[in-house]
Amino acid sequence: MKKYELIVIGTGPAGEKAAVKAAYFGHSVAIIEKGDLFGGAEVVTGTLPSKTLRETALFFSGKYEKGLYSIDRNLQHRASIDDFMYRRKLVTTKEADEIHVNLMRHGVDIYYGTASFATAHVIDIAGKTPASIYGDTILIATGSYPYHPPQIPFDNKRVHDSDTILQIDRFPSSLCIVGGGVISCEYATIFATMGVKVYLVNDKESLLPFVDKEVTQELVSQMTNSGIKIYFNTKIESVTAEDKKPVQATLATGEILAVDMFLYATGRSGNTRDLHCEKIGLTTDKREQLAVDKSYRTAVPNVYAVGDVIGFPALASTSMDQGRVAVAHIFQTEDLTTLPHYFPYGIYTIPEISMVGLTEEQVKEQQIPYCVGKTRYTDLARGRIMGASGGFLKLILKKSDLTIIGVHIIGHIASELIHYGVELVENQKNLYYLIGRIFNYPTLHDLYKYAAYDGLSNLSGHKIKP
Amino acid sequence: MKKYELIVIGTGPAGEKAAVKAAYFGHSVAIIEKGDLFGGAEVVTGTLPSKTLRETALFFSGKYEKGLYSIDRNLQHRASIDDFMYRRKLVTTKEADEIHVNLMRHGVDIYYGTASFATAHVIDIAGKTPASIYGDTILIATGSYPYHPPQIPFDNKRVHDSDTILQIDRFPSSLCIVGGGVISCEYATIFATMGVKVYLVNDKESLLPFVDKEVTQELVSQMTNSGIKIYFNTKIESVTAEDKKPVQATLATGEILAVDMFLYATGRSGNTRDLHCEKIGLTTDKREQLAVDKSYRTAVPNVYAVGDVIGFPALASTSMDQGRVAVAHIFQTEDLTTLPHYFPYGIYTIPEISMVGLTEEQVKEQQIPYCVGKTRYTDLARGRIMGASGGFLKLILKKSDLTIIGVHIIGHIASELIHYGVELVENQKNLYYLIGRIFNYPTLHDLYKYAAYDGLSNLSGHKIKP
Repeated sequence: MKKYELIVIGTGPAGEKAAVKAAYFGHSVAIIEKGDLFGGAEVVTGTLPSKTLRETALFFSGKYEKGLYSIDRNLQHRASIDDFMYRRKLVTTKEADEIHVNLMRHGVDIYYGTASFATAHVIDIAGKTPASIYGDTILIATGSYPYHPPQIPFDNKRVHDSDTILQIDRFPSSLCIVGGGVISCEYATIFATMGVKVYLVNDKESLLPFVDKEVTQELVSQMTNSGIKIYFNTKIESVTAEDKKPVQATLATGEILAVDMFLYATGRSGNTRDLHCEKIGLTTDKREQLAVDKSYRTAVPNVYAVGDVIGFPALASTSMDQGRVAVAHIFQTEDLTTLPHYFPYGIYTIPEISMVGLTEEQVKEQQIPYCVGKTRYTDLARGRIMGASGGFLKLILKKSDLTIIGVHIIGHIASELIHYGVELVENQKNLYYLIGRIFNYPTLHDLYKYAAYDGLSNLSGHKIKP
Repeated sequence: MKKYELIVIGTGPAGEKAAVKAAYFGHSVAIIEKGDLFGGAEVVTGTLPSKTLRETALFFSGKYEKGLYSIDRNLQHRASIDDFMYRRKLVTTKEADEIHVNLMRHGVDIYYGTASFATAHVIDIAGKTPASIYGDTILIATGSYPYHPPQIPFDNKRVHDSDTILQIDRFPSSLCIVGGGVISCEYATIFATMGVKVYLVNDKESLLPFVDKEVTQELVSQMTNSGIKIYFNTKIESVTAEDKKPVQATLATGEILAVDMFLYATGRSGNTRDLHCEKIGLTTDKREQLAVDKSYRTAVPNVYAVGDVIGFPALASTSMDQGRVAVAHIFQTEDLTTLPHYFPYGIYTIPEISMVGLTEEQVKEQQIPYCVGKTRYTDLARGRIMGASGGFLKLILKKSDLTIIGVHIIGHIASELIHYGVELVENQKNLYYLIGRIFNYPTLHDLYKYAAYDGLSNLSGHKIKP
């Protein structure tokens, strides 16, 4: 039986980065993929396809330039789905190929098939060429799949989950989306930007509960302005999709939504069933997810798990990092001591949301005395040149020494702008440091400086401008 | 005679920020403006109007999406100049107004008219309401004006300098630009993006001599691809602009360019003539600029100078900073010790260029052992989603400890992306620190991580990918 120091199950962002890092540091590594393409949800169903659709939507709608010229580009639905499909295929096959090449270049042995535990060290691979391999350590990076409640008649034509929605061959005229998390909010805003009438049904009282409340309020306000109808505290009772009739979604309130397509995008479960974790005494929770400690180790000492299979936040960026951090712990690599304490969340709604550190709700809960500094995109020359109509950056400052402990952005390229804030938070910079920085002019990074001055005036009691 | 602790001459970015900062720290401040609008070149002739035209050009050409959909939006020249003029007016009047309000809010006394030295402490103001005021310290922030060589028949209709070019009431069909600096390169690429045939005539052997050579090579290559004809080592002999004939520019080589419009954009001189510096024994150089020390103090101890009037780099961002730093020195404010050591350069060509720290030419000259890490936009998922066709990020690393001592970017939103690099350079972070960071995925900030891995493989001798 072939022996490895590390066996990685799954080639998504978590698995790939882990395998490559371990191999780079000279360890023998095997990786197992059961799908047709490398890359997991990042490449095949989720991250990249949805960002490609998002780019298509932004291009055809001219969303960001509407404020600038008050004109609407023609929405050519027919044309744009072809463009999207073309682009999507190009982006995903290229990326899957890069992952494959990257694994090979590092000398990672690749196995194709479905992995399951024979023992805590032996993995059986079922597929075209069955095999059993031995690993000192096993890293589970199998990802997740969408939850299918029994009352939803998924047909992958008009009634979709978050994996099948991007395999549509036409854009819907109207769409009912169920969920209040990242995936449902992203699709709601992307389709609305394409000109699709969107209904978003959420059974909680707010969207994106882990995000700063002021940010989600701005999101809800901008969603509403772009024509999205949002239902809060509302459950879906049933859905019917009869031939030649619209899809009918019945809400708990009795209201019936007749729509062209339906997307159920709440809840994903861990891909753990095929693994037969019970054979090694490893249990999963009701979401079929695995519990891990800070070094991503499961209850079985030589078995680690990273990525969507361990649940929140289930973002490609954090999954990659989890893969690298797990490997740092497994092999005690030299970078173990320089791991970052903070990482950004990026949510690709339109407008984008991104954040690092604590929310205002968290500092209140932790009873940290704090103050905020906030500025809107429209306060900046750069924002006015762009014709920005909304969005803001908010700094959360520890009152005692004015250290920056949280940054929250909603608006154009928020997911890029946040990285500057990550450095500030990670390196415990304070308000005065930020005020002293020099930014190119005119840029959106000026949001930081303006927010810092706003923080200063909130402290001193008189409002000033830099 | 009214007395002030500080008199600032000019309300451009350098003057405004200086006056406001001094007033914020409780000092009595007067500011003098001779123009109709507040804001100097930033607002009236330069920075903001040109960035507004740039945004218009990018919108109507769909430049960044060409790679994505292989389509060209219709270039509607007639429509777009109206849009541009409308937007420009909106952006500039709003900004001028903000500056005015900001000065008033801080209790800065505003004088309208032309300032000149009576003594090193007394400034005479000529204008509607003449006055003489006394200042403990005088800060000159009068900006610059375009150099007019005698052989160029400037008429502000077809033959322009860099101040009048944006007052055109139609876009030219072809344009000859003279110069190889920031202004001429920016206009060359902006007009080319609008579909204007552009000839760029430069009397040196390369463009933008202070920029890393690999970056300017990429710029020249992309300029050439977008149809700009560049002449190096070539002087303009003469220009004629006869009625109902094209403008004829004769090059030193004998070649004659017949064009619709002509822009002479090389060399700006300091606005010092009206000041009568000779009265206080202060001399200017042949460009009518003032020499200053590190704290922006001139040869006359109570007289300081900041912004374009002291020459290079003459960017709005650095001018603002110079204003603030001068005030920190003048009043020994508490932030004097936390001033940044590094600042970014932002050049709004299409594609954008931005840099911080040392260029490869500088480290060679200083004989610092170094290595580089480089990645192209097309290497990234985000770049492929965008359909990026060029551009790169380059890190310059000190070989001894792998500290990041220079960052150079050419490509989409380079002027935003650089700020992350400024933090790295300012805080002397090294390659391993950067490799450990987590970036949102997919974003262009991944350029940093990929470049870091490239640096690592250049060191270790085997090429890897993160």
